[in-house]
Amino acid sequence: MYIVVVYDVGVERVNRVKKFLRQHLNWVQNSVFEGEVTLSEYERIKTGLRELINEDHDAIIIYKLRSMPPRETLGVEKNPIEDII
Amino acid sequence: MYIVVVYDVGVERVNRVKKFLRQHLNWVQNSVFEGEVTLSEYERIKTGLRELINEDHDAIIIYKLRSMPPRETLGVEKNPIEDII
Repeated sequence: MYIVVVYDVGVERVNRVKKFLRQHLNWVQNSVFEGEVTLSEYERIKTGLRELINEDHDAIIIYKLRSMPPRETLGVEKNPIEDII
Repeated sequence: MYIVVVYDVGVERVNRVKKFLRQHLNWVQNSVFEGEVTLSEYERIKTGLRELINEDHDAIIIYKLRSMPPRETLGVEKNPIEDII
């Protein structure tokens, strides 16, 4: 499974969330990580994130895709896709 | 085609970008819009965004999908998917 994670978390938690996601996924842009994961990795990521965020305040969307989706980049490509593959 | 747009633009341009995207797509979370578009709408969105951003500084990724992707939300659901459909 391929996931794209977009997060909107309070500034006091953002560094821990970023650090955690960096261990599992590829950083693509401010507040966006993505990568291929197994089902158990996916569950581990969700559990880890739930422990780090304030569920009454922060918001995270995890898009679940079959494979790396085609995309178009406008402006600066912060982490070129070639580096992800 | 269904697109998910994530943007990271300078604070001085963010309101114009948000206002523009709101005319074409559904807001789902801070810095994230999505929606079903025709090919010509998609081209219009790209052209419009290119006019609004500073291409040497801002970054926008447009994920191109076949249909609305499954997703999981952690924490607050800022704009529940039922409102989008």
